[in-house]
Amino acid sequence: MYPDSLKNLIESFQNFPGIGEKTAERMAFSVLGFDEEKFAMLEENLQAVKDNIHPCEICNTLTDKDKCSICESTQRDKETICVVEDSKIVFLFERLGTYKGLYHVINGLISPLDDVNPEDIGLDKLLDRIKNKKIKEVILAFKPSVEGEITALYIKKILEGLDVIVSRLASGVPIGADMEYIDTLTLERALEDRKEIV
Amino acid sequence: MYPDSLKNLIESFQNFPGIGEKTAERMAFSVLGFDEEKFAMLEENLQAVKDNIHPCEICNTLTDKDKCSICESTQRDKETICVVEDSKIVFLFERLGTYKGLYHVINGLISPLDDVNPEDIGLDKLLDRIKNKKIKEVILAFKPSVEGEITALYIKKILEGLDVIVSRLASGVPIGADMEYIDTLTLERALEDRKEIV
Repeated sequence: MYPDSLKNLIESFQNFPGIGEKTAERMAFSVLGFDEEKFAMLEENLQAVKDNIHPCEICNTLTDKDKCSICESTQRDKETICVVEDSKIVFLFERLGTYKGLYHVINGLISPLDDVNPEDIGLDKLLDRIKNKKIKEVILAFKPSVEGEITALYIKKILEGLDVIVSRLASGVPIGADMEYIDTLTLERALEDRKEIV
Repeated sequence: MYPDSLKNLIESFQNFPGIGEKTAERMAFSVLGFDEEKFAMLEENLQAVKDNIHPCEICNTLTDKDKCSICESTQRDKETICVVEDSKIVFLFERLGTYKGLYHVINGLISPLDDVNPEDIGLDKLLDRIKNKKIKEVILAFKPSVEGEITALYIKKILEGLDVIVSRLASGVPIGADMEYIDTLTLERALEDRKEIV
């Protein structure tokens, strides 16, 4: 129905996460309406991301410099590292604006079922950093899942003997949630981790 | 918060219709995950749309040939033209698969408030075509709005004296709609255009 080039672009757009057929069609049609400048800008921005963005040499957070702005900052608490499974999570935490420590992005979570083993997710670099940089606390901010648990336990184990606190994010009832819709695992964890009201 | 190139790409994606901040972020991150081939394909498809897609020389429907596949087809009823305000509407009708006539895409609707006048929307080409190609029926498929009405009445007027039927899409209650939520204009039109049950 569509001319080939238009059909191909619609398919390209549908490859993006969260983009359905309708949206991909609207996007492709809007490309047709782009003037030279807007079109050049889109191509340039795509190319720049491809060319310039890479992991920070210290913490692996995506950056366009050698070291990311968080590692370079003099305002951060250099003794605390929050370990996350993906750069996206760093930006999520930064949006909060309340966390003042550093980050370390590992290469996903250990997942025996998908054949992702401890040696695949770059824990050496994390371990070196914790040992050499006098880190006092390591916060493991993985998603509450089997893979998150396995990875957290594994990191806890390889840090044994070092003078470092290993913590994890609190799990529990999300703010605003309806109690009757909370799944049993979450409820179990919320009960287990209950805090005294003081 | 984001590195500059990533921020720029997110902004580029947000320029597309229907793409909010969250989706634009997910899209930009997914570009980072593209391998060389997938990235080249996206750039190629963008460029191809920019380079190859243009209006059909007969009916203005977007195409990558001189004439669109509908104008070139020998299976269509060459005596009926459906006039639409945008190529998108052609593809919408084609999806139905029930309309067998030809199309003509005009350059938007007459809108005195936006300073879009009859001479701005390419009616000469339409008029020439109707005169020279022995067209028997012209279906005006504009959206039911003030601009749609003005444009339809104007076209009806310039076709006066020609041996051609000018029709418009039926307006009325949409299938599946709840009667109590129908706006008064639609209801008025539905009543006016009521059809005898035979």
